[in-house]
Amino acid sequence: MSTTITIDELAKTPRPVRVVVDAMGGDFAPLNEVQGAFRALEGLGTDVEIVLVGREPDIRKHLANAPDRIKILHTLDIVGMEDEPSSIVKHRKESSLYVGLDLVKQGHADAFVSSGNTGGVMATATMVLGRIPGVSRPTIGSFFPTMTGRPTLLVDVGANVGSKARFLHDFAVMGSVYTELMQGIASPTVGLLNVGEEESKGTDVAKETHMLLKSSPVNFYGNVEGRDILKGTVDIVVCDGFEGNIVLKFAESILGFLKHRFRSFANKGLLQKLLIGAFRPVLKRVLSGMDYQEYGGVPLLGVNGVVIIGHGSGSPLAISNMILKADEMVRKEVNGAIQRKLTIEPVSKGQQ
Amino acid sequence: MSTTITIDELAKTPRPVRVVVDAMGGDFAPLNEVQGAFRALEGLGTDVEIVLVGREPDIRKHLANAPDRIKILHTLDIVGMEDEPSSIVKHRKESSLYVGLDLVKQGHADAFVSSGNTGGVMATATMVLGRIPGVSRPTIGSFFPTMTGRPTLLVDVGANVGSKARFLHDFAVMGSVYTELMQGIASPTVGLLNVGEEESKGTDVAKETHMLLKSSPVNFYGNVEGRDILKGTVDIVVCDGFEGNIVLKFAESILGFLKHRFRSFANKGLLQKLLIGAFRPVLKRVLSGMDYQEYGGVPLLGVNGVVIIGHGSGSPLAISNMILKADEMVRKEVNGAIQRKLTIEPVSKGQQ
Repeated sequence: MSTTITIDELAKTPRPVRVVVDAMGGDFAPLNEVQGAFRALEGLGTDVEIVLVGREPDIRKHLANAPDRIKILHTLDIVGMEDEPSSIVKHRKESSLYVGLDLVKQGHADAFVSSGNTGGVMATATMVLGRIPGVSRPTIGSFFPTMTGRPTLLVDVGANVGSKARFLHDFAVMGSVYTELMQGIASPTVGLLNVGEEESKGTDVAKETHMLLKSSPVNFYGNVEGRDILKGTVDIVVCDGFEGNIVLKFAESILGFLKHRFRSFANKGLLQKLLIGAFRPVLKRVLSGMDYQEYGGVPLLGVNGVVIIGHGSGSPLAISNMILKADEMVRKEVNGAIQRKLTIEPVSKGQQ
Repeated sequence: MSTTITIDELAKTPRPVRVVVDAMGGDFAPLNEVQGAFRALEGLGTDVEIVLVGREPDIRKHLANAPDRIKILHTLDIVGMEDEPSSIVKHRKESSLYVGLDLVKQGHADAFVSSGNTGGVMATATMVLGRIPGVSRPTIGSFFPTMTGRPTLLVDVGANVGSKARFLHDFAVMGSVYTELMQGIASPTVGLLNVGEEESKGTDVAKETHMLLKSSPVNFYGNVEGRDILKGTVDIVVCDGFEGNIVLKFAESILGFLKHRFRSFANKGLLQKLLIGAFRPVLKRVLSGMDYQEYGGVPLLGVNGVVIIGHGSGSPLAISNMILKADEMVRKEVNGAIQRKLTIEPVSKGQQ
C-alpha cells in the first residue's frame, strides 16, 4: 500500500534511486501522472522509488492498490500555465513544482519529472538546482524523426533566445554527451544550423560559434541547413532557441496540416471518403514519427540535477517514459560527464 | 520569325512592355527558358515583348518558328552556381545576368526574370538597379501553403541575415503591398515570427520590430509562432532571412521525407506495395501544395525594377509563370506603391 510521507521521513529513509513526479503538472493531472507512475514501475529496477508530489486527496483517488514503492508527498499549491516563470521561486514555495525540485536540491531525490508549464519548470529548476559547473546556460532540445530512422536532436528549442557563441558551444557539448550515453551513439556528429555550408555564412554569432565548435571536444560536422534536420545528416543540430523554437513549432504543425489536407480530400465525395478510410491505418503508421508528442519528455540539460520536461497533454505512456528516462540519466551519470567535458577542456576565457 | 537584336536597336524601337529572360540561368537553360517564353506568349497581351538574353546559337536551337515578339540579345558569358555573388558586377559584365539587368536599368526593358544563381541575381540586381527610394534592404519572400487554402508569404527567406528592426519593418510593408496588389487581398494581415505571442518575447530585434510594426502602415496582427505559418493565421509572416531560410529549407524537405516514409512502407511487402500504388494519385494530389517548386518564382522586392527569381530546376511552366508575374507587377506598378508607402509614412530617423 502506497504511503504518504513527509520530507523529514524521506530524508531519513535509506536512499534508493528516487524519481520525483510533479503529480499536478499536466493537463490531465494527477490521473495521467499516477497511471504513468504505475506503468513505469514495470520497467524500473526494484531499487527505484517514485515520489508523487501534489494534493494528496486528488492523487489518492487514482491510487488504489499502489505498491509501497510509490510514495506521496502532500503539497497544496499548484503552478498553472498562467504563472510567470521567474516568480515561482519567490511566491510559490508550497507548489508541487517547487517542493519537488527542492527534494532533488536537498539530496533527498535524484530526478524530477514534470509535464507542467515548460517555462516555469525551466526557470524554477535553474534557480533551485543551479547549473552544472562549466555550463554557461541550461538548454532544452527536441528529437526530430529523420530519413535514416535515427532521430536528430535539435538543441536549443526555446530555453535561450539570443544566445552567445559560448552558449551554443555548450549546447553542442551537452547534446553530444546525452546522445552518446543515452542513445548509445559513439562520437555523435554535431551540425550548426545555418543558411549555407561555408563557414563564412550566417550571423556574427553563427560565424563565431562555427570557429568555437571547430576547436571543441565535439565531433563537429560543420554547418547544416534547414533541410538537413529531417534528412538526418547529423545526430545533433545546434541553434539558438529563437530559430529552434520556430522550427519545432513549424514541425509540430505539419501533422495537423496533413490531416486537414486528407480530410478536405475525403470531403469531396463518397468515393474519396472510402479511399481515405481504407488508407487510414497506413497513413497513421507512416505519419506516426511526426507526432512529436510520442517522443515523451526531453531533458533540461545543464542544471545540477536530472530534470525531464514533458508535453502538457502527455499520456500515461509518455509520463512513464519520462520516469524511465530520468532513472536512466541518473544511472548513466550524464550530468557528471557533462561537467567533465566542460571543465577539463574549457573554452579559453577570451572566447566566452 | 524571332529576330536577334542589339541593345542599340532595342533602345530605338518603340517601347512595348518588355520582359527580359535570362536564357542561361536555370539548370536546363536555355531549353526551359525558351519553352517558357513560348508558353508565356499565350497569356500575355500583344503589347508585351520577351527578350531572351544569352548565347544565340544555343537559344536558336530551340527556337524554330518563334514569333517576332520573342527577341534574342546575344551575350557570350554565363554566370554559374560557383560565381561569387558580389563579384559579378565587376567581372562578368558580358554575362546574360548582367546584360539583362542593365537593360532594365537603362530603361530599355521593364522586368527581368532568372532561374540562375539566386545569390548572384540578388546581389547583381541590387547593385545594378539600386533600391527603391525609402527601402532599407531589398528582400525575397516565399509562399507557403496553408490550411485556409490561401498561401502565406514568408519574408525574408535568405536575402538578409542579421536584419535590423527597420529592415524587418520594410519587409512587412513590401510584403503587404505585393500581397494587396498581386493577390488582391485588401489590407492583408502581417505577423512577426517569434517564440510567443506577448510583445515582450524574443530577441531584442524582435521586440524592437514589434514596436515599429505597431505604428506602421501595415495591418499588424502581432507576433506569430512557427505553427502559424501552415495554419494561415496571417497573410504575411515577417522574419530575418536567417530563420526564414532555415524554415523554408526545412519546409522544402518535408515532401522528400514523406515520400521516403511511404516508399519504406511500400518496401515491406507486396500487399504494402499495392496499397501505396493504389493510393499514389491521392497522395500526389493531397501533397501537391507542398511542392515549393510549383509556386514558380518569387519577386525580389525593393530593387528599382521588377525582378523575379526562380528555382534552378524550374520547368517551362514555372518560367512562363515568372514572365506573367513580371508583366503583372509592371502593370500594377507594385514598385511605385512600395515607394509611396515607405516615403509618405517614413519611420522617424531615430528608429532606423
